[in-house]
Amino acid sequence: MSNIYLGVIGVGGVGTAFLNQLARLPNAPKLILLARSTQTLLAPTPAYSPAIPAGDWKAAAETPSLTKSGALSPEEIASYLSSAPGRSILVDNTSDPALASSYPVFLRKGISIVTPNKKGFSSDLSLWKEIFAAAAEGKALVYHESTVGAGLPVISTLRDLVATGDEVTRIEGVFSGTLSFLFNTFAPVSGASNAKWSEVVAQAKELGYTEPDPRDDLNGMDVARKLTILARIAGLEVQGPDSFPIESLIPAELASLPSTADGISQFMTKLPSFDSQMAAIKEGAEKQGKVVRYVGSVDVAKKEVRVGLQQFDKDSAIAGLKGSDNIISFYTKRYGSNPLIVQGAGAGGEVTAMGVTADLIKVIQRLG
Amino acid sequence: MSNIYLGVIGVGGVGTAFLNQLARLPNAPKLILLARSTQTLLAPTPAYSPAIPAGDWKAAAETPSLTKSGALSPEEIASYLSSAPGRSILVDNTSDPALASSYPVFLRKGISIVTPNKKGFSSDLSLWKEIFAAAAEGKALVYHESTVGAGLPVISTLRDLVATGDEVTRIEGVFSGTLSFLFNTFAPVSGASNAKWSEVVAQAKELGYTEPDPRDDLNGMDVARKLTILARIAGLEVQGPDSFPIESLIPAELASLPSTADGISQFMTKLPSFDSQMAAIKEGAEKQGKVVRYVGSVDVAKKEVRVGLQQFDKDSAIAGLKGSDNIISFYTKRYGSNPLIVQGAGAGGEVTAMGVTADLIKVIQRLG
Repeated sequence: MSNIYLGVIGVGGVGTAFLNQLARLPNAPKLILLARSTQTLLAPTPAYSPAIPAGDWKAAAETPSLTKSGALSPEEIASYLSSAPGRSILVDNTSDPALASSYPVFLRKGISIVTPNKKGFSSDLSLWKEIFAAAAEGKALVYHESTVGAGLPVISTLRDLVATGDEVTRIEGVFSGTLSFLFNTFAPVSGASNAKWSEVVAQAKELGYTEPDPRDDLNGMDVARKLTILARIAGLEVQGPDSFPIESLIPAELASLPSTADGISQFMTKLPSFDSQMAAIKEGAEKQGKVVRYVGSVDVAKKEVRVGLQQFDKDSAIAGLKGSDNIISFYTKRYGSNPLIVQGAGAGGEVTAMGVTADLIKVIQRLG
Repeated sequence: MSNIYLGVIGVGGVGTAFLNQLARLPNAPKLILLARSTQTLLAPTPAYSPAIPAGDWKAAAETPSLTKSGALSPEEIASYLSSAPGRSILVDNTSDPALASSYPVFLRKGISIVTPNKKGFSSDLSLWKEIFAAAAEGKALVYHESTVGAGLPVISTLRDLVATGDEVTRIEGVFSGTLSFLFNTFAPVSGASNAKWSEVVAQAKELGYTEPDPRDDLNGMDVARKLTILARIAGLEVQGPDSFPIESLIPAELASLPSTADGISQFMTKLPSFDSQMAAIKEGAEKQGKVVRYVGSVDVAKKEVRVGLQQFDKDSAIAGLKGSDNIISFYTKRYGSNPLIVQGAGAGGEVTAMGVTADLIKVIQRLG
């Protein structure tokens, strides 16, 4: 265990929480590379020592004992890590698609990957296949629990179901904390809300629950990427997150507004004129005694992936969700009509980092 | 992976389902010992070959290619497995306390343990400590996911929370499929049931949802054992399942009836005279707008473990449980007021075996 070396990229919300968790791990691997967009900290070669103190990297960056560099290419990072005197692991705490497309470079050199970055697993199917082929070739491991539901045991549970020979027939759930909050507030089970859709969106934006541009949540793309990952693990060859229907909650008339601050402001200003459309959707569900929720589903037998609005019985687990929780239901042959359900916070720096740290521990146990 | 050897004890419901799952695993370890109460099948020494075909062991038992023996002692089994030409794993699919108390013997010899048998982890605290000390000494692994919630990811989730440094403050849930069914039927959220308690117990017995002697479910001991295991993983030094209050649902007046067929029959006959007691408990909850459920809880800060009846809000996840499902809520510092929840079937041969098989795969990955 002492002979495992770690490179970490990204020091945003998840990255910082991860480094704090890493600093508290007993028998932590040696942190020898820490990169952010413009700067890279490295343990000096050829000794790969001293290591970077994970909990105190900012102060250490000011000392002469570590090597500093500008941004390194994935190839340079892979070369540095693979020359370390032991097995090495790359933790990618970014959401960078370019870095994700380089995973095969790392894996072929025997560097394992641990990441919450969805891009490598939810982009073109060829990249997915190349990642796992490269891992087999390099005898390296790939763990990515936090790509779906943050630290909730979603990926691991699905992999266990598949590996033990269960037949997963359907996966369905609420995969976005933002959209969970919007619909739990807009259309609560109690029916007691008169809030307009645009008001709920504005409130969520105010509370910091949405991306800076709420359209990045409302377009459904984040949910589509998560569904792509789950569908692939369940055995479907999904070409990409754009190869199945995604119901966007951005009114077509507002889709072409620019992503600038001015465009966002225009979007928020014009959204109220579409409130009657969302009210009609809500009332349509109410008439059936149901509520509307934004969900994703994979029907394995029909090879169908869907992302969009659906009506749910008021006593269903999905309808009863609170706050910005995620819920994921696995219907399988063994579990029958009552699914295996995982529920809880599906976003946030600490819980996302927890999934990364738990994965790291498992990779260390397998390499160690 | 090809150099891992497997001994399996127990061919009951879980054992049989496990052997069928094992037979379908790619790169399965070699099954070299299969024991049931009176008979043991062995791959012949010194070659430890041919292996026993997991899916077809009954037919193989009739061939001369395998060695047959009567029941072997744990020491004899440990000696046989530890002499195999590779790492070995014992899968204990029994609920035998004597075998569980011998886990240290196996572990010290480097034999890993995978089991759904609660006894080793929920009996005296000294045995719990000895098991994990012996594992460290023998560099062997111990996995026991199916001891709580069958194949649901309960143990693994709790271990991940603890290992990554989260603070688990409270664990609560419904841990018995039988008691789940009894209360979901007796006191449904809809309030629409007029069934008497004794009728519900009789129905559950009829359906095979209870143990042959329903008192083995109603005494709460099975739930207490599961809570003992969770509390210990969360860091509490619980002496045993009898060191905290357990609310038994067996009326004191009927507790001394013998466990014979006649005693069971007398119990079922006399149970209706206690229906008014259970009706009062149900109505007491109704008056508060709540429902009553049989739950277990661990309060980590207060170092308190409790097993018994509690009232729950009708819109709570525990109240809304269906069929004989389990639900386990983990309250932690990181997850805040909305817990991480795992829900689904917590009993049954196939799903229990799934937890065992998934554990086996993880042990193989770590040894391989």
